[in-house]
Amino acid sequence: MGKHQTNKSGRSRLIRKRAKKAGLPPGTLISETDQVQIAARLSLLDYDPEQITEKEIKTVQESYPFKDKPTVTWLNIDGPTAAVIEELGTHFNMHPLIQEDILTIGQRPKFEEYEDHLFIVLEMMRYDDQRSMIKFEQVSLVVGNRFVLSFQEEVGDVFDVLRERIRSAKGKVRKMEADYLAYTLIDAIVDHYFLVLEKLGEQIEALEDIVLADPDTSVSGRIHRLKRELSLLRRSVWPLREVLSHLQRTESPLIRDTTRLYLRDVYDHTIQVIDTIEIFRDMVAGLLDLYLAAVSNRMNAVMKVLTVIATIFMPLSFFAGVYGMNFNHMPELKWRWAYPLGFWIIIIISAGSMLLYFKRRKWL
Amino acid sequence: MGKHQTNKSGRSRLIRKRAKKAGLPPGTLISETDQVQIAARLSLLDYDPEQITEKEIKTVQESYPFKDKPTVTWLNIDGPTAAVIEELGTHFNMHPLIQEDILTIGQRPKFEEYEDHLFIVLEMMRYDDQRSMIKFEQVSLVVGNRFVLSFQEEVGDVFDVLRERIRSAKGKVRKMEADYLAYTLIDAIVDHYFLVLEKLGEQIEALEDIVLADPDTSVSGRIHRLKRELSLLRRSVWPLREVLSHLQRTESPLIRDTTRLYLRDVYDHTIQVIDTIEIFRDMVAGLLDLYLAAVSNRMNAVMKVLTVIATIFMPLSFFAGVYGMNFNHMPELKWRWAYPLGFWIIIIISAGSMLLYFKRRKWL
Amino acid sequence: MGKHQTNKSGRSRLIRKRAKKAGLPPGTLISETDQVQIAARLSLLDYDPEQITEKEIKTVQESYPFKDKPTVTWLNIDGPTAAVIEELGTHFNMHPLIQEDILTIGQRPKFEEYEDHLFIVLEMMRYDDQRSMIKFEQVSLVVGNRFVLSFQEEVGDVFDVLRERIRSAKGKVRKMEADYLAYTLIDAIVDHYFLVLEKLGEQIEALEDIVLADPDTSVSGRIHRLKRELSLLRRSVWPLREVLSHLQRTESPLIRDTTRLYLRDVYDHTIQVIDTIEIFRDMVAGLLDLYLAAVSNRMNAVMKVLTVIATIFMPLSFFAGVYGMNFNHMPELKWRWAYPLGFWIIIIISAGSMLLYFKRRKWL
Amino acid sequence: MGKHQTNKSGRSRLIRKRAKKAGLPPGTLISETDQVQIAARLSLLDYDPEQITEKEIKTVQESYPFKDKPTVTWLNIDGPTAAVIEELGTHFNMHPLIQEDILTIGQRPKFEEYEDHLFIVLEMMRYDDQRSMIKFEQVSLVVGNRFVLSFQEEVGDVFDVLRERIRSAKGKVRKMEADYLAYTLIDAIVDHYFLVLEKLGEQIEALEDIVLADPDTSVSGRIHRLKRELSLLRRSVWPLREVLSHLQRTESPLIRDTTRLYLRDVYDHTIQVIDTIEIFRDMVAGLLDLYLAAVSNRMNAVMKVLTVIATIFMPLSFFAGVYGMNFNHMPELKWRWAYPLGFWIIIIISAGSMLLYFKRRKWL
Amino acid sequence: MGKHQTNKSGRSRLIRKRAKKAGLPPGTLISETDQVQIAARLSLLDYDPEQITEKEIKTVQESYPFKDKPTVTWLNIDGPTAAVIEELGTHFNMHPLIQEDILTIGQRPKFEEYEDHLFIVLEMMRYDDQRSMIKFEQVSLVVGNRFVLSFQEEVGDVFDVLRERIRSAKGKVRKMEADYLAYTLIDAIVDHYFLVLEKLGEQIEALEDIVLADPDTSVSGRIHRLKRELSLLRRSVWPLREVLSHLQRTESPLIRDTTRLYLRDVYDHTIQVIDTIEIFRDMVAGLLDLYLAAVSNRMNAVMKVLTVIATIFMPLSFFAGVYGMNFNHMPELKWRWAYPLGFWIIIIISAGSMLLYFKRRKWL
Repeated sequence: MGKHQTNKSGRSRLIRKRAKKAGLPPGTLISETDQVQIAARLSLLDYDPEQITEKEIKTVQESYPFKDKPTVTWLNIDGPTAAVIEELGTHFNMHPLIQEDILTIGQRPKFEEYEDHLFIVLEMMRYDDQRSMIKFEQVSLVVGNRFVLSFQEEVGDVFDVLRERIRSAKGKVRKMEADYLAYTLIDAIVDHYFLVLEKLGEQIEALEDIVLADPDTSVSGRIHRLKRELSLLRRSVWPLREVLSHLQRTESPLIRDTTRLYLRDVYDHTIQVIDTIEIFRDMVAGLLDLYLAAVSNRMNAVMKVLTVIATIFMPLSFFAGVYGMNFNHMPELKWRWAYPLGFWIIIIISAGSMLLYFKRRKWL
Repeated sequence: MGKHQTNKSGRSRLIRKRAKKAGLPPGTLISETDQVQIAARLSLLDYDPEQITEKEIKTVQESYPFKDKPTVTWLNIDGPTAAVIEELGTHFNMHPLIQEDILTIGQRPKFEEYEDHLFIVLEMMRYDDQRSMIKFEQVSLVVGNRFVLSFQEEVGDVFDVLRERIRSAKGKVRKMEADYLAYTLIDAIVDHYFLVLEKLGEQIEALEDIVLADPDTSVSGRIHRLKRELSLLRRSVWPLREVLSHLQRTESPLIRDTTRLYLRDVYDHTIQVIDTIEIFRDMVAGLLDLYLAAVSNRMNAVMKVLTVIATIFMPLSFFAGVYGMNFNHMPELKWRWAYPLGFWIIIIISAGSMLLYFKRRKWL
Repeated sequence: MGKHQTNKSGRSRLIRKRAKKAGLPPGTLISETDQVQIAARLSLLDYDPEQITEKEIKTVQESYPFKDKPTVTWLNIDGPTAAVIEELGTHFNMHPLIQEDILTIGQRPKFEEYEDHLFIVLEMMRYDDQRSMIKFEQVSLVVGNRFVLSFQEEVGDVFDVLRERIRSAKGKVRKMEADYLAYTLIDAIVDHYFLVLEKLGEQIEALEDIVLADPDTSVSGRIHRLKRELSLLRRSVWPLREVLSHLQRTESPLIRDTTRLYLRDVYDHTIQVIDTIEIFRDMVAGLLDLYLAAVSNRMNAVMKVLTVIATIFMPLSFFAGVYGMNFNHMPELKWRWAYPLGFWIIIIISAGSMLLYFKRRKWL
Repeated sequence: MGKHQTNKSGRSRLIRKRAKKAGLPPGTLISETDQVQIAARLSLLDYDPEQITEKEIKTVQESYPFKDKPTVTWLNIDGPTAAVIEELGTHFNMHPLIQEDILTIGQRPKFEEYEDHLFIVLEMMRYDDQRSMIKFEQVSLVVGNRFVLSFQEEVGDVFDVLRERIRSAKGKVRKMEADYLAYTLIDAIVDHYFLVLEKLGEQIEALEDIVLADPDTSVSGRIHRLKRELSLLRRSVWPLREVLSHLQRTESPLIRDTTRLYLRDVYDHTIQVIDTIEIFRDMVAGLLDLYLAAVSNRMNAVMKVLTVIATIFMPLSFFAGVYGMNFNHMPELKWRWAYPLGFWIIIIISAGSMLLYFKRRKWL
Repeated sequence: MGKHQTNKSGRSRLIRKRAKKAGLPPGTLISETDQVQIAARLSLLDYDPEQITEKEIKTVQESYPFKDKPTVTWLNIDGPTAAVIEELGTHFNMHPLIQEDILTIGQRPKFEEYEDHLFIVLEMMRYDDQRSMIKFEQVSLVVGNRFVLSFQEEVGDVFDVLRERIRSAKGKVRKMEADYLAYTLIDAIVDHYFLVLEKLGEQIEALEDIVLADPDTSVSGRIHRLKRELSLLRRSVWPLREVLSHLQRTESPLIRDTTRLYLRDVYDHTIQVIDTIEIFRDMVAGLLDLYLAAVSNRMNAVMKVLTVIATIFMPLSFFAGVYGMNFNHMPELKWRWAYPLGFWIIIIISAGSMLLYFKRRKWL
């Protein structure tokens, strides 16, 4: 049931939010998290090859001094409120539509280019094993020359390994600029798609085994849910492909040439994700065919049992009925061996020949 | 039934009107609303950042003085008659084909560029809860430098919130030019698509629950109707996408650069609507598969009951028939315990082993 | 049956003619109408804003003087023979392949541009109510600077309203040049597509009502025929779209700029026809699904009746059989109330509990 | 069965040859006809508007003198051997890959442009009525300035009418250059596609009549085979379209402008062939749906007969069983009119009301 | 079962590897073969038209002297370890992402262009007859001016014939440069696709024969597996097409013009492979339809047997039941010929007319 509800929420999530905004002026900021009134959590990471500063901050204003330093500044905001966005928007000169997009969850992945920053919206996916469902979370990135702002719906993300890498100065990230940081964030998100695909792949395999062995009536529902899960996944990966294609070919000086090669790599991964999704969709469609064939075959089997039984016993019952008739003149009834021999021989031959016939037609 | 009829009218609406015009010279004005003889209702809204004039007018001529003022003028016409269109056409220098298009309902969304005005046709959608159907209404916009003419089939639209915003000077609309007004009109229309999608999404969810739980024979009809509703929706949103894409990239000076960003935003929303429609179509197709699987499964269940009953009672009836025979020499008949013990033991063993067999094959 | 044959001819028409020509030198003129030996009917219409000449002519040569006058000349030829085409071809300098195309029916709509004339092939469609089928007829247009030649397969077309309009000088056509005349011919043809679509739409609606109410076995055949009709329609409209797109964007001076806007309009109508055809195809496919679901449901209903009857009467018959047995020692047989009370109570309870069970499972 | 095998060979033909070559150096010449050791048959046709030379030659060298004359030379080779190709390849300066392509049957239609000749591969199709299958044969053309080399798999082709035309100087071919000769060869091949399509069209019509009237179980196999035949056909025509499109737009001086118009014409025919194939595929898919619906309907009919019989006779048998019981106290048994009147009236009413019920539900 | 597992591994192979890397810095080298700890096998082939050196080497450093010689050097590495790749990467100046790609199996075929080398990833396929499955192996090529590095997952490949050719100086390869060597490697791989296709084609044919003759319930599973096999195949060939298209059109001086023609040839082969896969997919889809039709037909046959038996014996049993009744007054019972003649005549007529009826309806 949990699975079922996830999917519902996965879908409704997209539609409801939009619907609620109908009629409001464009650029109106409605914080999606207002309802639960969680203050935004702000965490700041500022580094260059030599040193690193990491801290939780209370107000966005605390981060402004870092912005002007020649270091790379990564400000991550979990559950941003309208007030936070507005303050940042003014300071970083973000277009009102960007501000609206950050707050409106259920966005399509998109890439927009402004003079002094790039705006990227992505969907982060994780597989929730307990409720066995895909959890979607919107991540918005604002990438400037020396800073990256990242906005997430709630606390908890796929970036912990990356943070560890920055702290320990493993990999190249400490030596590179903000665009490379943005790339690693995107890369981390896309890499998690493979984890989600792996889970779905396991489910498909499990279902396949069931359908090939002994499918019950719940199978069609499970196939249906997998199909829907794949539809949702697909909807969020296809536009991501365009986003990365644009990002890689943008002429904005904010993306350096050395980073472009890496962006092409993550673009290739996205294509691979899409390929896999398409194959999974094919497979799930094939599973349904297989299941329907199994149901037909089983029906056939049931019908054969019925037909065999009826074909054997109907003639027999008729014979028994004949000799239960009360005609005065039925000479057979008086014969000594009529019943013990004659009758049973007829019965056995009749039933036997029927069985033989069905054997031949491979119904048994 | 109401739902059924809607769909019919939704479809026929497209075809009939065109058919009626076959053979007439192009540019002939046949007012679609002539039949019911409602005079056009004209309402005028004229504003700049400082002041606002709002009034219902009787003749189009009353609106002409506003046109030359440096304010933005919005003239909305509900149920325009051929006469009104012709008068406006002459005054605003509209091509005869535009005039024809405004009067011919069932148009495909389109965008045409003329020297001193732009012509846009859209479909406004609302969900009629009472008759649980989508209500389509054609809206035509003529966008000039300082004026917007909007033409609707009948009184009642999705612009009330927008009017309120203009009156109260909320949002940016009062500070902007006619092109931004046109954008907000389009935005209001597209935002309502999400409301319609939400309603359809709810219907799909409800149907899904029914199909997974206990589908009856009415389900296939309901799926069919949903499919058709989505087809109609899709037909009107796909061309809208092109319209907005052209509008955003037009080189006409009537569209200012600041507005272009907003048009891109509403274009993005249209893509999102299309994505959702495609997913819904997928889901509805999946629902049909699910339903057919359910029907097959139920048939299987029925057949199993029949087969179990027949398989148990046919042999039993045969045995009873045998001992109802009138052969003179049937020694069993005379045994003391033949009936109370022998016969019933055979019966119970025979029936019991059958039941066991069916239990094993999981038919029970 | 009439419907069935139409479709056959509609299809074969395309293939046979081509096949017959295999092996002949390209440009060979085989008159399609030679077989029935009807002489071509030639009618001429020559006009300018001031005056109009209309007459039936016997030989093509009679039309030549009109060609050089500064008026617009429309020569319509019904059922052209090879001789007529050849004579006209020489006089108007038409390429041999054009001549061949005019005579070969079953052409794909096409547009070809030559220095001093344009060549357009279209399919004219009418709905034949008596035989309830679509009637296709090929129309070829040769459009010069001051003349239009139109070639039709047989007498009878969709241009009568247009002729009337020219005679009475209604609309703009009398004031315009030959390219506008060509446009009005095309427009008249495309407008008739909507009439055909309306007829098909009515058939789909009628079928839908039948399928939702009480489908019989003839339904699948009717769906199949509708599908084929739509396939044929589609095949002739898709290339028309390209034709009109090219025609509108051609750089030939034979098409004046004022006419281009009108061509765009008829192009838009073609798109609308295509949209409608695609929706109809969707609907017809949906109808088949609906029908198959109905067949399955009905099978289910039949099986339920059988199962209910068998499940009730098989046990009852067994009980009756038991007390028809001839065992010497069957104490029940001697009880006073065994039959009138005991037996019938068992029967009623047994049948009643079965009925209750089926009621609960909603089989009744 | 012949039909079945054909199709197999039609398919395997493609795959086996390629597979055999795996691992060999590119350009290796394996003569496909080596196995049967038929020497190549060479026939030469040399003409200009005034005179014509036609002869069978033994060695390719005999044809070389003709090459340098200002006449058009057509050398046709049936069943070329590796030696012949190599000799010609050296003399005409053909790239090793061309030589390999000519010998490797099962090629995709292709067009390649070299400095002093063009290389074209096509598939020639004929309908073999006896084995009722499509016969594919690869034709390779090497088109130079004044010569055309054509290579066929075996003796027998679709060019006889063309040869006759050249001999009798009918049509334009004698007056034109080598490129026009190449065009007429291609045209002859494409024209034969229509003959093949006509045969398939007839088969589809025949199958349609069967499916609508009285389909038996062989129908699904026949539909399957038609589908496969169409798949193979389609695979060879789609690339042909590209070939002709390139050929017509090539900038090689070997194709003269006058010929281009003719190539566009044969290109149009190819499009028409493709259109027809697509419609046929649609129809065949529709046939399968129709057939499955027919099977379902027939099952329904069978089930109804069973249900009617069971529903009528099960209660009757029960009544007969009741009065066959041996209870001592069954007062009805003693009534005078119980059997001749009472019993039969019950039987007739019971059976009659059932029949009436089934009549009402339209099962009879 | 072997087949089943293959397919699983074929799929999982793609997904698992990626998933394992999630969170690691890009460019991190994880050797896929580390788990089994097989040292890389390095084999070197160095040649020019005059001489050839062939040897197994222990360390990559041994190959460096050959690199600078004006000969062509082919270094093949089976099961490369991270250490080997890193060493080579530094020496040959390979981008870290290339190094990562070589080690990460389950890559999509790709082509990347660097200043002094080209990087190509392909999938090598072989058909494992014993386990009757397709075996995929990733091959990466690094193509420099005078050297080719090839990396394979494990020992054993499709290049033996090619090595033999180089040794014996057959074909052109010894006379050509490194780019031609790369081409022959790709050509060998693509040629093996045809072998795999041939195997799949045989399986499809075999399945087709079974489905047309006498399908059992295992067929749907086999069809499903074939479908999946084709999906995997398709996924790896489609991107290969792009790779070869880019490779052939690259402006890199590393590809010489003479080689381009050969690359176009192998590109054509890839198209042919794709065509064949698409046809196979069509056929397999058709097989499933055919199978489902066969299942339905068989069900029909079963139902007919049941219906015939029931329709014949139910009335007969009823008659026997009637004359088994114990009414006192049943005059028929006393007639002399009632049983031997009257009864059996009724029975025979009744059964006979039923049989005749079924014969007429072609149920028998």
